[in-house]
Formats: sequence, structure tokens, C-alpha cells
Amino acid sequence: MIINRLIFARVTTTIRVALIQIDDYGPWTVTPEPRREMDLQYLQASLFADFAAFVDTYDGYAFYGRFDNMVAVVNEIDPADFERFQRQVRNRYPVTVSIGVGLAETPVEALSEASERLQAAGSAQDGNRREVLAIGDDEPDDTGMVTVGHFDVVDVTGSLTDRENAIDVSLAIRRATLELAAYLRAEYDSIAHFVGGDNIIGICSDIGPQAFDDAIEHVRAETGLELQVGIGRGPTAQAAGEQAKEALEQCRATGARIHGDGQLPADD
Amino acid sequence: MIINRLIFARVTTTIRVALIQIDDYGPWTVTPEPRREMDLQYLQASLFADFAAFVDTYDGYAFYGRFDNMVAVVNEIDPADFERFQRQVRNRYPVTVSIGVGLAETPVEALSEASERLQAAGSAQDGNRREVLAIGDDEPDDTGMVTVGHFDVVDVTGSLTDRENAIDVSLAIRRATLELAAYLRAEYDSIAHFVGGDNIIGICSDIGPQAFDDAIEHVRAETGLELQVGIGRGPTAQAAGEQAKEALEQCRATGARIHGDGQLPADD
Amino acid sequence: MIINRLIFARVTTTIRVALIQIDDYGPWTVTPEPRREMDLQYLQASLFADFAAFVDTYDGYAFYGRFDNMVAVVNEIDPADFERFQRQVRNRYPVTVSIGVGLAETPVEALSEASERLQAAGSAQDGNRREVLAIGDDEPDDTGMVTVGHFDVVDVTGSLTDRENAIDVSLAIRRATLELAAYLRAEYDSIAHFVGGDNIIGICSDIGPQAFDDAIEHVRAETGLELQVGIGRGPTAQAAGEQAKEALEQCRATGARIHGDGQLPADD
Amino acid sequence: MIINRLIFARVTTTIRVALIQIDDYGPWTVTPEPRREMDLQYLQASLFADFAAFVDTYDGYAFYGRFDNMVAVVNEIDPADFERFQRQVRNRYPVTVSIGVGLAETPVEALSEASERLQAAGSAQDGNRREVLAIGDDEPDDTGMVTVGHFDVVDVTGSLTDRENAIDVSLAIRRATLELAAYLRAEYDSIAHFVGGDNIIGICSDIGPQAFDDAIEHVRAETGLELQVGIGRGPTAQAAGEQAKEALEQCRATGARIHGDGQLPADD
Repeated sequence: MIINRLIFARVTTTIRVALIQIDDYGPWTVTPEPRREMDLQYLQASLFADFAAFVDTYDGYAFYGRFDNMVAVVNEIDPADFERFQRQVRNRYPVTVSIGVGLAETPVEALSEASERLQAAGSAQDGNRREVLAIGDDEPDDTGMVTVGHFDVVDVTGSLTDRENAIDVSLAIRRATLELAAYLRAEYDSIAHFVGGDNIIGICSDIGPQAFDDAIEHVRAETGLELQVGIGRGPTAQAAGEQAKEALEQCRATGARIHGDGQLPADD
Repeated sequence: MIINRLIFARVTTTIRVALIQIDDYGPWTVTPEPRREMDLQYLQASLFADFAAFVDTYDGYAFYGRFDNMVAVVNEIDPADFERFQRQVRNRYPVTVSIGVGLAETPVEALSEASERLQAAGSAQDGNRREVLAIGDDEPDDTGMVTVGHFDVVDVTGSLTDRENAIDVSLAIRRATLELAAYLRAEYDSIAHFVGGDNIIGICSDIGPQAFDDAIEHVRAETGLELQVGIGRGPTAQAAGEQAKEALEQCRATGARIHGDGQLPADD
Repeated sequence: MIINRLIFARVTTTIRVALIQIDDYGPWTVTPEPRREMDLQYLQASLFADFAAFVDTYDGYAFYGRFDNMVAVVNEIDPADFERFQRQVRNRYPVTVSIGVGLAETPVEALSEASERLQAAGSAQDGNRREVLAIGDDEPDDTGMVTVGHFDVVDVTGSLTDRENAIDVSLAIRRATLELAAYLRAEYDSIAHFVGGDNIIGICSDIGPQAFDDAIEHVRAETGLELQVGIGRGPTAQAAGEQAKEALEQCRATGARIHGDGQLPADD
Repeated sequence: MIINRLIFARVTTTIRVALIQIDDYGPWTVTPEPRREMDLQYLQASLFADFAAFVDTYDGYAFYGRFDNMVAVVNEIDPADFERFQRQVRNRYPVTVSIGVGLAETPVEALSEASERLQAAGSAQDGNRREVLAIGDDEPDDTGMVTVGHFDVVDVTGSLTDRENAIDVSLAIRRATLELAAYLRAEYDSIAHFVGGDNIIGICSDIGPQAFDDAIEHVRAETGLELQVGIGRGPTAQAAGEQAKEALEQCRATGARIHGDGQLPADD
């Protein structure tokens, strides 16, 4: 394990996660008859693009999830501000969205809370559940630090994109993503998501470089693909993610597999 | 295996597949310094939305792939018409795209041809490779029938969405998608892609209901998730996909796990 | 009058014009209470962008008109193809559109026919009138040549943009646009529309360079602004407009006030 | 003059206006040859849609102006926040934008200041002027109240849209808009802009109901079109505009030609 410039420290983390769900979407897609698939793809991708732009305003990170269920890490938002996104959707799209927000020490706990709050408000396919904003009433104002790991495949262009069939490249990267996401979820209560190309972003709370090293090793063992990761930490996903990107640039420049800028959590 | 209304027949298939690649994208995303992640997400999702709309004009199906590498099945297009999409991208976005097109009996062969043509024109990160349209010179005019399988998870809302943490639902569906895609690729030279919610679309050439049954069984064995599939066939992905969606509605209505409308390929 | 390279010839013209109307839009904008103005601006601009892209597929020209009533000149379209745009709108937006199509020797006659057909189908604010496509039953297949005049203000950057208050520049150009449009409508049954910057596009049927010279002179007399115009002619607005743009480049290069490429109509 | 519920009071106003200019746009549209017109229309409309959404975040109002020169009234923004819009444009579009911001007692003065600051930074067609943000260094933090008049044509659907040719309706409304805008600019240093349908929005500083009545009378005398206006006042364009819309609803309900909610300026 080659790690540069890591400063080890433990902090208490609190992370805010939002779950966005298109209301009654399944039934809508087949009413009065199945809607044209490319129109659905257009709608879903546009909605995610808009959601990413909205979340960006608050220095958060959004992930497309299953498209009809999108996820965001947005520490510095007043949960009531999600009403603005609900209004935008209502005035731009033929669908509406409900939103659950959770706050917890780990991303998965926070997302669980968000999921439960939304589920308590009604089924995703309940035609009467419209534009719910389930933020609870005990929402503390302050969140803590978030740790972001920005992963990619070592020399993906030379080893895969310029050499292999696009489908096999895709499958390889998707398998690596899935193994990474499942590992981080099981071991560290963290979320990881594919973000395009060969990039995977992990949203973590309080894990150190050894954990990232273990994760990379796990993916290598399961899939044969070698990942590298830049690690960042900050009060928002954007702040942490920006550091992580810069750290990943250092991986590319130095050949280190793990690189962190700034103050990172220590291993246990 | 419960299968309704399938008419068995073998046909020769020829499928046109296009591979769209953002030119020199990796370097662009970090020049002069790493660009803001949510801006990249916005760009990628918008580009895919536009690509889906373009492909829809020709009754094709587009998949976001890795976002910087997108894939489409578009039988009824003159490959030169892709120039129109290249022009649109050039005039709408800060990036440009190169496109390779292949024609073959199976989706994977066609995509291989498209990949090779594009790779022959230069690396995806070659700053001098811009707006290549690699369609070869031996392109026959006619394509054949395409078979589409539209899969989803049996009772996903009741069993997963309304019950589980959104991250675990996502992981389960992503694992099912990956197992299905890898199986169809290995066994039947076919492509499968996640299209949102719990939906997976398989683009196949000449496979019959037994193959789909085997695929569903494979996914159940590997992941525990039970899929159902509507099967359609037609001269374009859209025509076949529309049938497949209607057939999937029949699965939902009747409890059949496999349903096909119209003339479907027979098993060997 | 300095005119270069004009070849004079008279032809019979037939022009297809479409009028797109958002269904029941006024009431929608204030139900249940006035919707947020910037959301309406976003919706209208997005809808026009999509309409322009749709019309471009058929080599037509689209104008935003009053945004809730948009206009397009699309010679080479099967009027039934407008259903595709109606479907796109239905699946992308919270509103739907009705469309009237007319075919006549002049743009204004064609638009009148389109307007009347739409009006015959019900009021723009009739909540029951949804997604009408009023194309008549006597629609001939073939259209003729269309003449496009692409106007701009001589040295607008030097004389206005870099010198004056943006509001006064806007007012001056809007006044010139209005005088030009009113003149072309009254004298030549033609349509003119502002297209951004200092550009105005006239869609005309069968008028020659003297008519354009008269129009420019009229604008100068009424507003003091000096316009120049490139003239083009072709089977579609796009073909004619491309010529007109190239001709306008020649105006800029040579100082000529009127320039035409290709075969243009003669004066009477 | 029928005016309801107006409360008269004079306040000192300070208004922030921003001028957005696409950098070097004219040359770009014709390099290396004239770009396709519908692509330019798409680009301009998309850029305005995005700008409207951006400005909405700060409760401002944006107007498309000449599309390559857009205008916004955004009282409650830190001028440095416009950098965020510049970044979005850079990462979404093939063009970049420069922005000038002015602060003054009237909209026209503020726009003049914005224009001058931008002009001082270089010509709109200077290829070296890129992404200027000209906000000056003496920018006070606080702005005052803004008065918004939201105008429309009395019974436009019954008298025009459902009766007349779309081109003549457009010309009539554009002439009314121009006369109104020119009058408000000359008499009250105010800005008015067409916002779609038959709606015109006036951004004013410190004018009372008599001024609006005079403006309506001026338009009637010049064009024969009868306007009505709802008047609102607030610390932001959005707050004032929302009141104005509600007041306009009262005009529609009561037949009053002028209606104001809340605290409005008195006449001199």
C-alpha cells in the first residue's frame, strides 16, 4: 500500500441523505399503454440531470440510482428547500416526485431513515401519494464531515477501452462497481455508485486508508480489475469530492494506488 | 415454464449497432483542473437524453453504457445519418463525439465491429481524433429482425421498494442485471442493459423462449431475484420492444414468467 | 441598390406552415395559483428548443412566435409526422400541444389555413381540446421553393452593442424587426421573425431583390437602422436559409446591402 | 381608472441588474461556416432556460433580451455568485458568457452601469474577452424594493387567438409590447419585456398607479390594444412579480384594468 500525505484523525460524522422517488411511476409508464421506451429514457436522464444541478447548488452529490429512485448526499441544505425541486419537477415534467430525507452517522443509516420515512408516507405506486416531503420533525441543523473516495480503473483506456469490445469493458467495470459497492455497504455502511467512464464514487463516513486499501484488494480478488482511489474529506460531498479528485490525479501522476489530500480519518 | 402465444420460427438476423464515444473526454474532465462532478453528471445525462431522442427518430434503442461510451441498436438508419448527431453535439455541448457502426448477425458481433472500427481510427484519448464516423465501406443496406426481451422483477414494489433500504434494493437489482447481462453475452452473444426502476432490456438476435427461461433461472440461482420477461420481435428495436412491453404486461396480468407476442424465434 | 450574383426566375411556390399551440395553457399557468414566472420561462424556452430540434429533422425553420403559439415552415414533412412531436411533448412536459398545418402559395396564407383549422377544432382555452392535429384531408404531397431573407444590422457590434445601453439596443432592434415584419406581411404576404442578436429571418414565397431593397429602405426610413440581407432559395427553409446565410456573409465581406446566391426570384 | 386596494407609499429603491453576453458569439456562429440555424435556436433557447432557472434560485427575473444578450433583475444575489452560472455554461455549452452587473435607483440606470462595465472589459466580439465578471468594487450589499407590473391583453383568446391569423396576433402583441417598453423606458427609466402569450412584464422602481394607467392609455392610443396590469412590490422581482400576478387575476375577475396587492408606491 502506497499512501501519500495522509493526516490521520477521527471525527464524528453526520450525513444527510435524500431519496427522490417518482410518484406512481410504474403505472404511469404503461398508461394508457406502454410509453415509448426512448421517451422514458429521455425523461429519466433529464430528470437526473436537473436533480444533479439542483443538488450542486448545495454542494451535494447526486446519484441516478435506479432513475425512478435517485439518491443525494447533501449536508448543507435546509431539508425544506427540497420543496423547490418538487416545484421545478411539477412545472417541467409530466410526473411529480416525493422525497425522504434522513440524517445519521453513516450514509446507509441516513438512507435507511430516508427510505423509511418515505415508505411510511405510502407506497411508491400509491396513486394518492403525491409530492410527499418526509423530513421528520427532529432534524438537527448541523452535519459533520463526509469522506469521499473517487475510484477509477488503472489505465482503463490502454488496457480496456482501446482494446476490448465495448460490451466487455462495460461488464468488467460494472462488476467491479458492484463488488466495490457491496463491500463498502457491508463492511463500512457506505454507498458507492458508478458515475461514468470507469469512475466510481464512494460516500463514506469515518473510514481510513486501510479500509480503502482493503476495498481495492477485494475488487482485485473478485474481478481481476485494479482500481486506484483518491480520498478527500470535507463538510460537503462537493468539498470532499474535489479533494478526492485532486488526490486521484496524484495517483495517476505518481503510480500510488491510494492518495489523500488534507485531513483524513485514521484507521482503527 | 409458462409461455403463452409463442409462434416459433427461425430467421436470419442482421443487427446494426452504434458505439458513441466522447472524444478525449477523460483529459477534458480534468483540464485545467478536475471539473465539478455534478456538472459532469449533468453533461453526461443530457448527452444521453439527446442521444436517446436521436435514436428514437430511427426507431432504435439507445443505452447509456458508460455514459462516455454509449450504445445503440438502430437497424433502420443510413449510417451516414449519424453525422447529424455529431453536428448536434458539436453545436450544443463543449465536447464532440466519434461514432463507430457495425453490422452483424448478433448484437455482440456488431458491437465488436463498431468498437474495432473506432479503435482503428485512434485512441479514445487521442486529442487529435475528433468526430470520427467509422462506418466502413461494405455496409449492406438491409438489416433483419431483432428480438427484444424486456425483463423486470416480479412484484418489485411490494417485495423491495416499499420494504427495503434504497441502497439494498439498488444493489439487488444491479446484481440481477449484471448476472443477466453476463449470461446473455456469454451464452447468446446478446446485450442486456439496465433501463431504470427494475427494468432490464435484452437485445438478442435469434434466441427462443427456452433461452429466456434459462436466463431467468440463472439469475434466480445466482441472486435469488425472480425476473419475468416479455419477448417481442420486429425489424427495429422499437417495434420489437413495443411488443415486448405488451407481452410483459401480460406477464403481470397472468402470472406467466415469460410471454411473447407475435412471431418469435424457436428454440434450437 | 448593390446586388451581386442574382439570377432571376419566377417559380410557383407552395409552402407548408405549422402552428403549434399549447393546450389550455393560460388556465394552466394560474392553476391552482399563478405558477412561478421563471418556471414558465424555463418551460416555454425548453419547449421551443425541442420544437426547433424536431423541425430541424425535416429541414424546416421554427420560430418561437408567442411561445405558447409557435410557428414552423416545414415543406418536406408528412403532416402526420407531427404526431411524433405531440407524443414527445406529452412524455416530456406537463402540458400538451395541438397543431394546425396549412399549405398555400404564401407563408401568410398557409399560416392562415393552419390557424383556421386549429380554431375550427376548438378554443385554445377549451379544456377539452387536447392534442388536436388539424391537417385537413386535401393535403397535396408536394411543396415548392421557399425564399429566405436573412437580415442583420450593419455593424451592430461597433455601432450598438459595444456603445449603447443594452435596453436601448434591444428596443432599436425590436423596432426594426417589427417594422420589417409588418412591411413584409402587408406587402408580400411573408413572415419575418427575430432570431437572436441582430438577426431577423424572413420567410417569403416569390419576391425578388427589389422587394428586399424596398423592405430595407422602409426600415431605414421608419427607424434609422440600416439592415443588410442575404437571400437564398431552395426546396426547404433550411436549404434556402443556408444560402441566405452564406449570402449575408458576402454582404459583410463586400459591403453590399443585398446579396443572393443561387437561383433567386425576379422582380415583377 | 379603476384601481383596487392600493396602498400608497414612497420608498427609496435600489435595483441590481445583470447583463449576460455570449462571448464572441457572432464570429462563432459563422465559423468555420454558418452554423445550422435550428442548432443556434436550440442553443439560445436552452441557454436562456438555464439562465432563468439560475436566476430563479435568487428570486430574480430573467428576460431573454436578444438571446446573445440576456438581462436579469436579481436583487438578492452576491454578484460573485454569477461565477457559478459562468461555470455551468462553460461545462454545458460550446460557448462561454461574460457578465456585467450594475446597481442603481432605476432599472435602466442599473442596466447602463452593467453595460458600461462589460463594454469597458472589451468588445462583445473580442476573441480574447472570455468569461469576464464585471461587478465593480463599490457594490453595496443592500438593494431596495422593486415594483413589477404584469400586463396582458384583455380577453386575448376571445378577441385574437381564436379569431385571427397567428401572424397578425403576434404582430399586434409585439407592437403593443414595443410601445409599452419604449414608453416605460422613456418616461420612467423602466424595463419591459415580452414573456410569452400576451404577457408583458415591466420592472420598475418607484412609480405609482397613475403611471401604469398612463402607460396603458399610451398603448391603446398607439395600437388600439387594451392592456390590463397587476402591480406588485417586494424586495425581489419574484416577490413583487408574484403579487403582480395575483393582482392581474383580480383584474380578470373584476374587470378592473389596474390592480395592486400590498404596499404600492404613490403617484407624485
